[in-house]
Amino acid sequence: EIFNTIDRYFSAEKKFTLPLAGKKILVTAGPTREALDPIRFFSNQSSGKMGYAIAEAAGEAGADVTLISGPSALSDPSGISVIRVTSADEMRREVLARYEHADAVIKAAAVADYRPESVSGSKIKKADGPLLVKMVRNPDILMELGRIKKSQLLVGFAAETEQLEDNARAKLEKKHLDLLIANHAADGFAKDTNKVTFFFADGHQKAYGEMPKKEIAEKICRTVSELMETSGQR
Amino acid sequence: EIFNTIDRYFSAEKKFTLPLAGKKILVTAGPTREALDPIRFFSNQSSGKMGYAIAEAAGEAGADVTLISGPSALSDPSGISVIRVTSADEMRREVLARYEHADAVIKAAAVADYRPESVSGSKIKKADGPLLVKMVRNPDILMELGRIKKSQLLVGFAAETEQLEDNARAKLEKKHLDLLIANHAADGFAKDTNKVTFFFADGHQKAYGEMPKKEIAEKICRTVSELMETSGQR
Repeated sequence: EIFNTIDRYFSAEKKFTLPLAGKKILVTAGPTREALDPIRFFSNQSSGKMGYAIAEAAGEAGADVTLISGPSALSDPSGISVIRVTSADEMRREVLARYEHADAVIKAAAVADYRPESVSGSKIKKADGPLLVKMVRNPDILMELGRIKKSQLLVGFAAETEQLEDNARAKLEKKHLDLLIANHAADGFAKDTNKVTFFFADGHQKAYGEMPKKEIAEKICRTVSELMETSGQR
Repeated sequence: EIFNTIDRYFSAEKKFTLPLAGKKILVTAGPTREALDPIRFFSNQSSGKMGYAIAEAAGEAGADVTLISGPSALSDPSGISVIRVTSADEMRREVLARYEHADAVIKAAAVADYRPESVSGSKIKKADGPLLVKMVRNPDILMELGRIKKSQLLVGFAAETEQLEDNARAKLEKKHLDLLIANHAADGFAKDTNKVTFFFADGHQKAYGEMPKKEIAEKICRTVSELMETSGQR
């Protein structure tokens, strides 16, 4: 009985002092897969490591975290509610359904930009010649979130192979993000470390050297907490 | 000293009685990934489970196994030499390099039939309109192995969404296989079980009900051993 009381006391204490205590945070992670037929698909190199690390760090920082993950070999982080999706379309639906009540959305998923225009119901038989695949644009989930956002804090990612800063700044503004974390594609995909630069909506930026993704995740959570304070969410 | 002798005795005994003792077996597993740019690729649903199970079963049956695996989340089976590849082209090179000295090749990999004709060196920027991707045929590794085979036993797989038997028979003959294991795509991909039919070069076939892939793997190894005896490899 007395232990329970002590336990409750410290839980309450902890809840009060943790930087993201009481905050509802949506994290997306992994690639998406865009079907061409029941067997073949388009995808990308994302492993999900960055998003999973952020979900864990946000959970440790006291947040109520939902992780929406595309196909990833990683196992569910403990104590976090995980929703598994396959395509960009499914990812969009799951994110939008939870957006209104979220305090922050951290979109670490590498959602496929394109999907095959038509999906064959049966396996496309090989033919001798080439196969022309018409790919159409997937909905831009982050753009949509930016357009309809109220008080939610919006964090995006950009992996670029060239002109990192220009591309990052353009994305940040176009999508109404509060924070964009950018890296050179070669530095981060499927690796345990990354070398990132934080771009802020007020125009300033912060470049970091190579760090474990776990450490980057903690920096992101700390930054999100600070941005929430500044914006008066707290 | 005496223990070593006993140990050697039983090892020799074991080696003599195991059905694939002394046989060099190449197993391929998993999907391949065909790059469109440094981040995006084409692939398929193969998890590698069937091939990994076969490699393990062949190892337990005494064979000297090399597993050539496309990208898979599975960890290396113990006691088996594993070579990791990404594309069909790499898979082809690694298989051909070892073919001459192999007693049997079990091609469980779901090698991509097509690859993008050109691979962009940098990330293709999104544009508003559609993206036309011209896919060209990958080399048909199994066909090539069938064409240049000497005494090697050749085992292939077919996952079909329709006309299973016709497609399987045609593949078996066209590629000079000794055994083809066919299943309906919906029954096997990324699952722990499968429902397969064995098609033999002499025209007969054997259909099995749903079984764990481990059990299918053991049946394949037993069948390979029997076919080797019949063909006088032993």
